[in-house]
Amino acid sequence: MEDKRMSSQSVSSADGNGICLWLTGLSGSGKSTTATVLATLLESRRRRVSVLDGDEVRKILSTELGYSKSDRDTNVRRIAFVAREIVRHGGIAICATISPYRHARSEARALIGERFVEIYVDCPLEVCEARDPKGMYKFARLGKIPDFTGISAPYEVPACPEVTISTLSRSVHENAHYIVDYLIASGMLESA
Amino acid sequence: MEDKRMSSQSVSSADGNGICLWLTGLSGSGKSTTATVLATLLESRRRRVSVLDGDEVRKILSTELGYSKSDRDTNVRRIAFVAREIVRHGGIAICATISPYRHARSEARALIGERFVEIYVDCPLEVCEARDPKGMYKFARLGKIPDFTGISAPYEVPACPEVTISTLSRSVHENAHYIVDYLIASGMLESA
Repeated sequence: MEDKRMSSQSVSSADGNGICLWLTGLSGSGKSTTATVLATLLESRRRRVSVLDGDEVRKILSTELGYSKSDRDTNVRRIAFVAREIVRHGGIAICATISPYRHARSEARALIGERFVEIYVDCPLEVCEARDPKGMYKFARLGKIPDFTGISAPYEVPACPEVTISTLSRSVHENAHYIVDYLIASGMLESA
Repeated sequence: MEDKRMSSQSVSSADGNGICLWLTGLSGSGKSTTATVLATLLESRRRRVSVLDGDEVRKILSTELGYSKSDRDTNVRRIAFVAREIVRHGGIAICATISPYRHARSEARALIGERFVEIYVDCPLEVCEARDPKGMYKFARLGKIPDFTGISAPYEVPACPEVTISTLSRSVHENAHYIVDYLIASGMLESA
């Protein structure tokens, strides 16, 4: 489908307005919260935004998948597919998903193209674990959740993300504004 | 996610421009061909279009699913999810998928809302079987493909589709123009 769609049906002139903001980080790092505030900010600038939250999208696109490396990669690929459609139609897709593997994020970047912005949501594991908003770390430490990122499965820190935000030293509002400032500075978002 | 996204993040004023054209019909009825010509026509009117072809989308969104009723329903749900995102962002999604079950199409309609246009691609089974573009009917008749729509699984004809096209008595170009005319007459597409 890639070739067919990209060759005959993409309308390149207007595609440039779309943006994919890909938030990656540990569970509990603050991806979803950042995504929500960021969406509000962007909507106040009259942009249309869809938040594709990893946990939520899973319930629709990947009901049968687990958390093995292969299944996570497939899930990331599906989120990227939806994000690409949103970008093609001029919208903003905010993807908030652990997406722990570098190559899977690279694949998403390759699929979506130059309107892909990787945002590393940086927060030390011990802080995420202390927050434990869903009570998952506790179960992971007890060995009750296999393949839990940071505990029993790896998280590969982005080598060269467009943006890094720290949810330990900055507030969610500061971070959301920082991302908007980046988009304006890089010419992806209008300043007005 | 539904509630969260629909309540806080949809931008209703501009959503109205999006359209989902849902082509349903037997395998070999002409859905994909109609979708391709229709996409070209709509693009010539400066609309952005994505064709979500059932067979192709399956390779990305539903790799692990088969053709049981339950799996087909899940696949249809995923296509509808992507189509809804496209519609939200003002684009046109042309979904070309057998989607044989009425309730699954109703679910897609409910998800997408009033910008959903069900198009029944009408063609007698014997004609589809004679065409057999993918050689699938032959295998289905030999009992080599279980749950094959029209042979060993049902196709539920739409009770009240917005548009019905016959690929037996009309050419693909006539049908594509007919659909565009419907969209204009119903106020979903600008006439200019």
